Amino acid sequence: MTRLADTIAAIHPLDSTAQAAAAERQSRLTKPAGSLGLLEDLSVRLAGLAGTCPPPIPEPAVVAIFAADHGVHAQGVTPWPQEVTAQMVANFVTGGAVVNAFARQTGAAVRVVDVGVAGMLPADAGAGLLIRKIRPGTVDMTVGAAMTRSEAEAAIETGIEVAAELASAGYRCLLTGDMGIANTTASAALIAAFTRREAAAVTGRGTGVDDVTYDRKVKVVRRALAVHKPDPADPIGTLAAVGGLEHAALVGFILGGAAARIPVVLDGVTPGSAALVAAGLSADVLAACVAGHRSAEPGHAIALRHLGLSPLIQLELRLGEGTGALLALPIIQSAVRALHDVATFDAAGVTEKA
Amino acid sequence: MTRLADTIAAIHPLDSTAQAAAAERQSRLTKPAGSLGLLEDLSVRLAGLAGTCPPPIPEPAVVAIFAADHGVHAQGVTPWPQEVTAQMVANFVTGGAVVNAFARQTGAAVRVVDVGVAGMLPADAGAGLLIRKIRPGTVDMTVGAAMTRSEAEAAIETGIEVAAELASAGYRCLLTGDMGIANTTASAALIAAFTRREAAAVTGRGTGVDDVTYDRKVKVVRRALAVHKPDPADPIGTLAAVGGLEHAALVGFILGGAAARIPVVLDGVTPGSAALVAAGLSADVLAACVAGHRSAEPGHAIALRHLGLSPLIQLELRLGEGTGALLALPIIQSAVRALHDVATFDAAGVTEKA
Repeated sequence: MTRLADTIAAIHPLDSTAQAAAAERQSRLTKPAGSLGLLEDLSVRLAGLAGTCPPPIPEPAVVAIFAADHGVHAQGVTPWPQEVTAQMVANFVTGGAVVNAFARQTGAAVRVVDVGVAGMLPADAGAGLLIRKIRPGTVDMTVGAAMTRSEAEAAIETGIEVAAELASAGYRCLLTGDMGIANTTASAALIAAFTRREAAAVTGRGTGVDDVTYDRKVKVVRRALAVHKPDPADPIGTLAAVGGLEHAALVGFILGGAAARIPVVLDGVTPGSAALVAAGLSADVLAACVAGHRSAEPGHAIALRHLGLSPLIQLELRLGEGTGALLALPIIQSAVRALHDVATFDAAGVTEKA
Repeated sequence: MTRLADTIAAIHPLDSTAQAAAAERQSRLTKPAGSLGLLEDLSVRLAGLAGTCPPPIPEPAVVAIFAADHGVHAQGVTPWPQEVTAQMVANFVTGGAVVNAFARQTGAAVRVVDVGVAGMLPADAGAGLLIRKIRPGTVDMTVGAAMTRSEAEAAIETGIEVAAELASAGYRCLLTGDMGIANTTASAALIAAFTRREAAAVTGRGTGVDDVTYDRKVKVVRRALAVHKPDPADPIGTLAAVGGLEHAALVGFILGGAAARIPVVLDGVTPGSAALVAAGLSADVLAACVAGHRSAEPGHAIALRHLGLSPLIQLELRLGEGTGALLALPIIQSAVRALHDVATFDAAGVTEKA
């Protein structure tokens, strides 16, 4: 557990000197004070994260898609066959998914990490695919713990390593992506456990389930919580009981980004549920987290509120993959760029208001 | 009036065949049906606008900032001196404003058009500045009509010409920008006239006014409406009575974009009020309009609701210049790119849901 402990120890609160400098600079830029709304707060926070003003523009950016399967699929919580996880991984690698289209538009790189896909993936998929399989899918959480504590820890450390590798490669913004048929069931269970809300309040229709499947999904979440009685004071224990391998890797990825003082843009409900685990391990991790969007999943809004994060975009997306984070990326980059590029009243010879 | 009449005659409803093709294509892409939320509707609409599926990705993009001054400034509706309009135009031309920073980040070009700045602008400002001054600022609308009907028509035609020139130059997305100290007063008066709401409901604090100035601003809007009793059934008469020269040019720019079947991304409350005038001249113009964001100005939300447009972003911005439209641009481009780049279930060998 050295790597995880070291990473948590490396996460610090925001640098208040850099934040004050950014707030002061915002007040001198040629625009009315406060007229950039939430983007001013965001730019100040990212200055505090970087410990310098202006902070680096968060580019180049990379979205890491952590993929895994779920034993709870056997309970009939989704109409999609489990093999779709592996098929979509292949689609990501060949560039045919929505995440690839959005990444192309916004200039972000895409990496796919198999941390627990049930099927075999092509070994010759190229540099875009990292095989770091912890185990071929989780155990059905209604029957037993989804994974052992040591498997959860190994997946977290994989996420930490991926974040560190990408930071070393020069990426200055990390976007969370996820793929795993049935993973919104695990996300709902985690959100219920950490926010102490009832299963029905946090469970959504995921990629689109009918009423009968939805009712079954809520009951499955409720049963898993009854079986394990997860204690949010033990974040890793809760994760191991009802989470997924991609959730665990995302926990590490978020911690790793925060330790490297790089912004981590959260996508939808699965990264949102992973952020609850990460915040349980280190409250300061949230300083690095930017909520890219709020998805159509009801549990996502509840998780974001619990974390105190305001989403940049609300467009009723419910796809995952990192798509919502990618749409938010230019907004975040623009917010920081204002601190770099915009002239001050003095320099531009613009008269200030009376 | 030939040019205006010709432009209105060239605006057609959406092509339903292209829309149906886009909706059908969305259903075959490798993602759950509907999982791109509002972006699916947007992509279908832009296919209908272009009359082809997939429609062109809306790039390269250009933001046209129409700048003008306002006689109503004399009523003390803002703490900013009038000369700031000309100073900010110079700032746009030298690339020092927020709009320039955001345009750089999103790869958009910037053009500035003087349609009525009171002060003189540098003649050697370069290709980024077009001098198309109709008159040096409007008349104080509490005293008389802000402009004559023929001045309003000339400014509209200028906006049409700018849109046509930019379309000819190869731009595939037009973003609205505006600059004019005191222009939110004119915007509020237009919105009150077209939506028949009370002055206090549609008047905001613009770039940031104190309580005393705000009360004065509301009374000024109320007085202007009482003096002119503008009839929204006469959109150009209403515009001439209580609008601004940049509002008029924006009306033409929106009409010109729609006639060229190019998406027009609306920024904040000033383009929103201009869109009310444009919609009064041609209801079909709205098919080309994408609401980039919803600003902090209360009148903007009212105008968008009246127009039936859903904003893509809500970040409490209140700057204008085109900044909110630029933040929305990558979202719009991504929505269309999905129709181009994303593989179908068949082509990618991904199994569909049961």
